[in-house]
Amino acid sequence: MQISPLLESLVEALRCLPGVGPKSAQRMAYHLLQRDRHGGIKLAQILHDAMVNIGHCQDCRTFTEQEQCRICGNIKRQQSGQLCVVETPSDILAIEQTGQYSGRYFVLLGHLSPLDGIGPNEIGLDILKQRLANESIKEVILATNPTIEGDATANFIAQMCDQFNIVATRIAHGVPVGGDLETVDGTTLSHSFLGRQKIDLS
Amino acid sequence: MQISPLLESLVEALRCLPGVGPKSAQRMAYHLLQRDRHGGIKLAQILHDAMVNIGHCQDCRTFTEQEQCRICGNIKRQQSGQLCVVETPSDILAIEQTGQYSGRYFVLLGHLSPLDGIGPNEIGLDILKQRLANESIKEVILATNPTIEGDATANFIAQMCDQFNIVATRIAHGVPVGGDLETVDGTTLSHSFLGRQKIDLS
Repeated sequence: MQISPLLESLVEALRCLPGVGPKSAQRMAYHLLQRDRHGGIKLAQILHDAMVNIGHCQDCRTFTEQEQCRICGNIKRQQSGQLCVVETPSDILAIEQTGQYSGRYFVLLGHLSPLDGIGPNEIGLDILKQRLANESIKEVILATNPTIEGDATANFIAQMCDQFNIVATRIAHGVPVGGDLETVDGTTLSHSFLGRQKIDLS
Repeated sequence: MQISPLLESLVEALRCLPGVGPKSAQRMAYHLLQRDRHGGIKLAQILHDAMVNIGHCQDCRTFTEQEQCRICGNIKRQQSGQLCVVETPSDILAIEQTGQYSGRYFVLLGHLSPLDGIGPNEIGLDILKQRLANESIKEVILATNPTIEGDATANFIAQMCDQFNIVATRIAHGVPVGGDLETVDGTTLSHSFLGRQKIDLS
């Protein structure tokens, strides 16, 4: 028994959001109708705008509604000579929140996966190669995910950097700060031993 | 550092959904941009349609995009002579899913709360009174929430029914089926004693 077909379409459409099942979608639809129609209309408008107008930065491939994103357009960041390679645009956000990095980024929008037909050009390595050739980049920081594919992608890009005599570094993998040795998995623990550093007492 | 103002507006706008905090909103925005732009555009359109076009049924006040909802327009349900009074439109959905009830509904869109300025007319009791006077209703089932306000509202409506010589019943409150006596709160348990029924051996 359909009470309102439009309301049921709304519940169904809300399920395209990640982590939203039938019950949550229903709760969201009723909440908006009962308590926040204004917010719902505003969300609909911004959502449409964002889906239509947000494209990729011509330099780093992150999401932006302009041709060049604000990080790539920032002169101070251009002068740092550092380029951090990440898999997804949300990785940039996570790194920005640490406040530790002031260079630019390059977003692969994936990782090398030959079995799925994802080769170097599919993750924008042709664009990256051009940037390595034309810009004055001193260091490429490889911050792909610590997975087999992420590691393979990092190695591939490191070899590319070598052709241009650019230093390639990989972010450290090890025991998370505030973590507990006992609860860390074996692979991470062995990474933390391989990546050990001399304590600088000076 | 804003990377994309439009993307940040989208994250902010998504927070009007219940149970969506800053992290979930961010995850939703990136998910739609990366993997489901088509779904995002469709959601935006249906959301706008729903917020603008869904109003209230002229008879029962539930959400519908037509003048009369499909339940009120159903002749079989009109003939049952039963009217179930609930607080919110989502209560109808919950009752419909049991498949136990085949009468019509009346939605209060709230409950009596004199301290907040919510009197009988604010919860549509003027409309309900007209229906009790004009339609052939045999029984009014009061399914307001088992709270102080819900009980007070149910009592108020029961007195109104009495004026028209219509039977008013209250849904049973007691131990949930499949529940455990030990874990049920005292008020519910005493309700279950007061509402005990003779076991019919016939």
